[in-house]
Amino acid sequence: MQVMRRDLFLDTKGFCDIHDITPKVRDFVYESGLWSGQVLIHVPGSTAGITTIEFEPGVLKDLCAALERIAPQDIPYAHDAAWGDGNGFAHVRAALLKPSLVIPVAGRELLLGTWQQIVLLDFDNRPRRRRIILQVMGDWTNPEG
Amino acid sequence: MQVMRRDLFLDTKGFCDIHDITPKVRDFVYESGLWSGQVLIHVPGSTAGITTIEFEPGVLKDLCAALERIAPQDIPYAHDAAWGDGNGFAHVRAALLKPSLVIPVAGRELLLGTWQQIVLLDFDNRPRRRRIILQVMGDWTNPEG
Amino acid sequence: MQVMRRDLFLDTKGFCDIHDITPKVRDFVYESGLWSGQVLIHVPGSTAGITTIEFEPGVLKDLCAALERIAPQDIPYAHDAAWGDGNGFAHVRAALLKPSLVIPVAGRELLLGTWQQIVLLDFDNRPRRRRIILQVMGDWTNPEG
Repeated sequence: MQVMRRDLFLDTKGFCDIHDITPKVRDFVYESGLWSGQVLIHVPGSTAGITTIEFEPGVLKDLCAALERIAPQDIPYAHDAAWGDGNGFAHVRAALLKPSLVIPVAGRELLLGTWQQIVLLDFDNRPRRRRIILQVMGDWTNPEG
Repeated sequence: MQVMRRDLFLDTKGFCDIHDITPKVRDFVYESGLWSGQVLIHVPGSTAGITTIEFEPGVLKDLCAALERIAPQDIPYAHDAAWGDGNGFAHVRAALLKPSLVIPVAGRELLLGTWQQIVLLDFDNRPRRRRIILQVMGDWTNPEG
Repeated sequence: MQVMRRDLFLDTKGFCDIHDITPKVRDFVYESGLWSGQVLIHVPGSTAGITTIEFEPGVLKDLCAALERIAPQDIPYAHDAAWGDGNGFAHVRAALLKPSLVIPVAGRELLLGTWQQIVLLDFDNRPRRRRIILQVMGDWTNPEG
């Protein structure tokens, strides 16, 4: 066994709705038995993204404010003119943030900082059920035992 | 065999020229025979990037407009003052978007959303021939057969 | 052996302090003996990031100026109001840039462009000692010998 996968499902509200998925990623890595290697976190879809941040309400608000400067909700989008979806801003934010992230694993632990959480960001303009794909690759052998 | 690579070559026009490379990535993954694992998509060079987006003309225009807000073409760049290249905006955009992306593979398929395509963005200020590196790693064994 | 890791330590000044770590990544890849595969570069912590850029002083200044447009230092942040850290701008920049990057390796070489360096960006508002994790995975067999 070189590769293992788990799918998470999450109900989101959109409009820069940010969820801490670190405990679920950590559980999966631990239960996979992987000793050292990598975990890939990936969200299929073009209106969401994955990154890391200190998961406290203030800075989540600050991040959404920065994304509002980059891709404001209240300006015209060619995507909306063509398709009437009204979520052009969400597509632009997701393309800039990108849908995947790779985190190293050693000794069955995620190598994250103390104040660094893995988050899903849903940028869409409506509630969604999101699928998040977790995948581990690497070495299942504990060198100490 | 744990790793396989293919190089794509693409002629680009620069100035936020965006190309859908999903079919070529999908072909490579399928032809590699990889059952489950990851495909890395990477563009060497400092004036291009890789991400995913719904590949329709409106939202591509919207993404380029957001990048114009972040790193406008018509402001002075210290890079241009020093080197006279005139492509300081392209370097900044590429550094923010980053040159690589990892997408999970299962059952020989890319785990992408229906409206999510893998794209190369060329930000340079002139036509280029771009090399894009595709690389698969993982498990070549079909558990069902 | 399928996975090898090395930790780098770097003293940084913060406030968009950018360091070229390409020689150290290249040394690690070469000394690991990996023939083909990937190197993951990852910074634990929520106020730093990893990307690639042409490492010349002008364009580094241009990149920091773009990040100043996205997340200015002199506007109020909810993070700072709640915690008094004064580094809300650093958290936002780090979340947008993301903490990790994967670069392909072939023939024991990093597949980078000539003018493309791997950099650590420290966004914090004080000097830090940063740990950077390098990890290789892939195939250690030279097909030619």
